[in-house]
Amino acid sequence: MARILVVTPNPAVDTTYRVAEQLVGESHRVLEVSQRPGGKGINVSRGLAALGHESVNILPLGGATGGWIAARLDELGLAASITPIAGATRTCVAVTDPHSHPTVFNEPGPQVTPAEWDALLVDVRAQLADAAMLVVSGSLPPGTDASLITALVVAARDAGVPSLLDVSGPSLLAAAAAGADVVKPNAEELLAATGTDDLDAAITAAQAAGARLVVVSRGSDGLVARQGGTAFSTPAVPGIHGNPTGAGDAATAGLAAALVDRAPIAEALRWAAALGAAAVLRPVAGEVDLDAFHRFLSTESPTTE
Amino acid sequence: MARILVVTPNPAVDTTYRVAEQLVGESHRVLEVSQRPGGKGINVSRGLAALGHESVNILPLGGATGGWIAARLDELGLAASITPIAGATRTCVAVTDPHSHPTVFNEPGPQVTPAEWDALLVDVRAQLADAAMLVVSGSLPPGTDASLITALVVAARDAGVPSLLDVSGPSLLAAAAAGADVVKPNAEELLAATGTDDLDAAITAAQAAGARLVVVSRGSDGLVARQGGTAFSTPAVPGIHGNPTGAGDAATAGLAAALVDRAPIAEALRWAAALGAAAVLRPVAGEVDLDAFHRFLSTESPTTE
Repeated sequence: MARILVVTPNPAVDTTYRVAEQLVGESHRVLEVSQRPGGKGINVSRGLAALGHESVNILPLGGATGGWIAARLDELGLAASITPIAGATRTCVAVTDPHSHPTVFNEPGPQVTPAEWDALLVDVRAQLADAAMLVVSGSLPPGTDASLITALVVAARDAGVPSLLDVSGPSLLAAAAAGADVVKPNAEELLAATGTDDLDAAITAAQAAGARLVVVSRGSDGLVARQGGTAFSTPAVPGIHGNPTGAGDAATAGLAAALVDRAPIAEALRWAAALGAAAVLRPVAGEVDLDAFHRFLSTESPTTE
Repeated sequence: MARILVVTPNPAVDTTYRVAEQLVGESHRVLEVSQRPGGKGINVSRGLAALGHESVNILPLGGATGGWIAARLDELGLAASITPIAGATRTCVAVTDPHSHPTVFNEPGPQVTPAEWDALLVDVRAQLADAAMLVVSGSLPPGTDASLITALVVAARDAGVPSLLDVSGPSLLAAAAAGADVVKPNAEELLAATGTDDLDAAITAAQAAGARLVVVSRGSDGLVARQGGTAFSTPAVPGIHGNPTGAGDAATAGLAAALVDRAPIAEALRWAAALGAAAVLRPVAGEVDLDAFHRFLSTESPTTE
């Protein structure tokens, strides 16, 4: 089975601090520290692995934090093709207590030089030769512009490999303009990027820009999609409560896996909704409850076309 | 000139995140990340270096964070004698914005094994042979008890080297009980450790426990001290505003330097107050304004005995 290439342009060491109570301006003893390899693409590749799809994480890594992520990917059994960079991979800190929502501090990430991106693109082009799909997921580091996204989409098309992009802002517009096969923003991201407050109009704008299939995740409102003149929608799995972090990435993994398996779009949306819900059930971002996924898929759900 | 040994039992990578506005439960873009080698003892050795006193940082370091601290100490020209540990040296995060006081998250630190502490003690005993003083500063990592402090004080006494301990809680009581030459808590720490709300009674308790010279820093109220039946006090340098982080450690450095130079106790307190104030003038913890230090020292201040 051909592999799915997953590019994470701005990976992170995701660190969680548990404290007794968050108070601005105070000093806190951290009661527990946990760390995991973060970045949306890494979550996608973990979801793909859960579904039995082989993927390769393609990512720039540098510094001690980058080395830490490389070691964790290896432990997780996730293939990685690393572009070494001079800068240090970022850390993101989430502070949790029993009283409030988590407070998150996202470092911007390292400067990645043009020469380093060129090296990553050379790697992507080489690996596209026997790839089933190219997935690009997450933000760009500071100083990197959306032309990177254009180059990735063009590389996939030149290799005859479908591309799926879960990116936002200028990257989303660049992906559409480059003719991405699938763009998968959430509703907020799509509205922001297209500058409208109407979801139908925003989807139309993304199509007009050049995206072939537009899939929009709407959290507890499920997913909608459009290809050409045909619209699709799937409700979210009802009654799911838990940790929503990483659920959108699991949905991307479900969507990618189904499309690579040549499922019809309506079925691919159901996979996305089911794997997203299966991620919510797990307390740790990046993990999915595979039994729940199969249970959710086996129940009739009113996907409309 | 014989060197001053400075033990930092629980060093840290001190990380500062600048954000637009701190809001509990929200996601923040970090606008700027800065990092410096932290841990009270490291600040002390930087203060000593500013005063022209050679010191050796003795500390357990592990993981990528530990390697980072070792590299920074080398860049700062601070001698270090490192005990490698299996655990990873901690990170502490301070979040700043223009609206509130910094919010600080202090990781507890790694588990350091008894064998690793034994290795550090062997190193301390070897280096005590030609040391001018042993300074121990800062908290203990989780799972390490105050018997480490006892062992350090006893090692110094066995070598005929004076010891100065800026520690708190059970470590402060252990230091006093082991007959430390100088203990230098702040007022809050001394009251908490001795379980009283009267500073005179607390100093008496520390003396009764076995401490020879008790020096108490009181922030903008200056310093007080007692040796035997003789009490000393020095006011803080007036009109100083800035960054108080690390000022207590600079005061410890000033005190240690003066005592090593055989200054009388009253003069040593003035050095402590002056170097503490000189640290407040610098925005970065660990740095001191040496010109200001000399200016503060040259003005008459009403040290009483």
